[in-house]
Amino acid sequence: MPPQPPAQGDAGPRLDRLRAACADDGIDAFLVRDTSNIAWLTAFDGVFDDESAHALLVTPSAAVLHTDSRYVDSARAAASDGPIAVDDARKTHAKFVADALEGPSNAERSSGADAAPEGVRGGIPESTLGSTPANPTQPAVLGIEDSLSLGEFRALEATLAEAPGSAPILRETSRFVLGLRAVKEPTEVVRLRAAQAVTDAAFAHIVAFMRPGMTEREVQIELEDFMRRHGAEGLAFPSIVAAGPNGASPHAVPGATLLEAGQCVVLDFGARAYGYCSDMTRTVFLGEPDERLSTAYEAIRQANEQVEAALRPGVTGKDMHELAERVLADHGFAGKMGHSLGHGVGIDIHEEPNLSPRNPHPLVPGNVVTVEPGVYLSGEFGMRLEDFGVITRDGFAVFTQSTHDMVII
Amino acid sequence: MPPQPPAQGDAGPRLDRLRAACADDGIDAFLVRDTSNIAWLTAFDGVFDDESAHALLVTPSAAVLHTDSRYVDSARAAASDGPIAVDDARKTHAKFVADALEGPSNAERSSGADAAPEGVRGGIPESTLGSTPANPTQPAVLGIEDSLSLGEFRALEATLAEAPGSAPILRETSRFVLGLRAVKEPTEVVRLRAAQAVTDAAFAHIVAFMRPGMTEREVQIELEDFMRRHGAEGLAFPSIVAAGPNGASPHAVPGATLLEAGQCVVLDFGARAYGYCSDMTRTVFLGEPDERLSTAYEAIRQANEQVEAALRPGVTGKDMHELAERVLADHGFAGKMGHSLGHGVGIDIHEEPNLSPRNPHPLVPGNVVTVEPGVYLSGEFGMRLEDFGVITRDGFAVFTQSTHDMVII
Repeated sequence: MPPQPPAQGDAGPRLDRLRAACADDGIDAFLVRDTSNIAWLTAFDGVFDDESAHALLVTPSAAVLHTDSRYVDSARAAASDGPIAVDDARKTHAKFVADALEGPSNAERSSGADAAPEGVRGGIPESTLGSTPANPTQPAVLGIEDSLSLGEFRALEATLAEAPGSAPILRETSRFVLGLRAVKEPTEVVRLRAAQAVTDAAFAHIVAFMRPGMTEREVQIELEDFMRRHGAEGLAFPSIVAAGPNGASPHAVPGATLLEAGQCVVLDFGARAYGYCSDMTRTVFLGEPDERLSTAYEAIRQANEQVEAALRPGVTGKDMHELAERVLADHGFAGKMGHSLGHGVGIDIHEEPNLSPRNPHPLVPGNVVTVEPGVYLSGEFGMRLEDFGVITRDGFAVFTQSTHDMVII
Repeated sequence: MPPQPPAQGDAGPRLDRLRAACADDGIDAFLVRDTSNIAWLTAFDGVFDDESAHALLVTPSAAVLHTDSRYVDSARAAASDGPIAVDDARKTHAKFVADALEGPSNAERSSGADAAPEGVRGGIPESTLGSTPANPTQPAVLGIEDSLSLGEFRALEATLAEAPGSAPILRETSRFVLGLRAVKEPTEVVRLRAAQAVTDAAFAHIVAFMRPGMTEREVQIELEDFMRRHGAEGLAFPSIVAAGPNGASPHAVPGATLLEAGQCVVLDFGARAYGYCSDMTRTVFLGEPDERLSTAYEAIRQANEQVEAALRPGVTGKDMHELAERVLADHGFAGKMGHSLGHGVGIDIHEEPNLSPRNPHPLVPGNVVTVEPGVYLSGEFGMRLEDFGVITRDGFAVFTQSTHDMVII
């Protein structure tokens, strides 16, 4: 039997964090369409895949997941007696929202096939919309995510306009739920560490496996297969195995290139475990590196370690990015990184907050970020050293356990 | 050495198909942001991953890919001397579009760092915008995809409004490039067949491998690992291995459930090869099936085979869906499918056209579709039999080579 998954988070407090944010912004109800946001808010395990097939409507007193027949059994099982109701009525998400906002008088109640499902009794009463509707005739404000597609936005506008009663005002929000997800709960940190443990084990395995003469692709397959056979439910992202000059393209697709002695090889990979991603990069050397490679490696190691020592609540993503750039420049690699220093990780591989020149906001405890300084010399080589971890009350706890020492194969 | 990939398609005719569609709709330039659409239009191999990091602007006389430093080397190599220019100027896609539409007077030309890159000489001359601008002072019409996120749409609107000159009119299109992609070229059919060949081989392997006592997850890992080690560059989608009652959830996530004698197991999986997806489902039996399972299997087999015999140019997706429903009903399984009969497949796993009640359009030669009738009895079992193939001049050529006979393990 496989081990029990780590404790799941609790939907109740997450919904309440969203409700509080809505109240602050004068939003009466919030429509969530991003599947990762829905996975986080519902805290359902094993229900969602990568299809964008669901909608979650959150009001001050209710949270209803609209899904379809393919998912409804597992969603109902996950919902059990928690705060999420599940609705699989055969209608568009837009119609679901219109009906739910319309309240108990809506036509669905009298229809046989699409009767109000378990847990949702004829829509959400109007009285639950907006905790402070000063004027009851004033239209409600419906928060939506601006990650919604334009086509779906237009359909929502049209459906709400056609529905009886006054259409809600649509408030377009950017990274609203993502902002909440940026502060991880302890149960999430456990899952992130579990995902990284698989990834560290895969690194130890691949170092023993890889040797000159193999293709990048062979190494990639072995790496990913190991993760999947050792606890990963999937990959956090397509792995990068980039030898020699290929390493200078940070998003190189592993191919038929042979690993050659004297090169360095960039390995950037991560597992998905219990719904959470990990992300790590190591650069390994096929035989003793020459001085240029050694110098570059020392530069990225110093940049990585100085940033990890400096990370704490109050520093900004911009501060950290600039610190890394300074260390790289001090070692003779000014302007050779070309990407930002790091990003948030969670249910998605790229989350908030970013360690980038465009993030002037102070980090807070619970932020989970990568630290991945790199140096790329087009036509020559590339290298990168990436850990990830969580901002604590007074510092940074690194999840990644693999060594920073040069690994020479 | 790995075998040479099948011949790549040619960007020129694909761009011309888009230009003709634009001309028909009064669109002067088209902005493509969907990465699969860009991969198809550029016909670049090995450049794009799953990040939505690129924009392609197509005008009557030019096609410019805006990408970033992570992809520019491989994009330039793939572009060679073809019809696509590559621009990696550090700016947002919105600014790239605004500058390109502004023409040769744009400010970028005088800036050092962001000078017009190779292949794009100071933006696209206004004279190339619109083949029939009756009134030169009339704003140009820029076609955009409504799969664009709402947030990016707002940013595009704002950037274009701020740019000098009259802002183009934004024409929101739905499935515009997808419509073109729905008719596959012969080079694409070769790649789709190659992807399916891997998938058929994996089925033969897994039938020999699986037995009662294994978990769904073990079977899934073996299946996917086999595909990746035998020519798949990745998976077309997360595989489904669903035993017994789990098969009744068409999107079941494989888990710790043990395979038991007497059950049937749904295997739904596909490889990605040379940029194209395959998709197949077989339901196998662990020991001799009882009469109820046998009857259900005969129903889905009949539905599958009668549809495959009926598929030809001129029939509609609706016709085919209804034919399958009729066959299932004749066998005593009316209303037990719960999903549509099939969907298009290509660079994406779900493309146009659909074999569904909502598709009244006649199929045409070059359409590639799945045929996947299923029967789902909640709490008991589910089964599905899925092939895919291409509509030919007078029928349907099935890519899937695996048997329709009952497979009893």
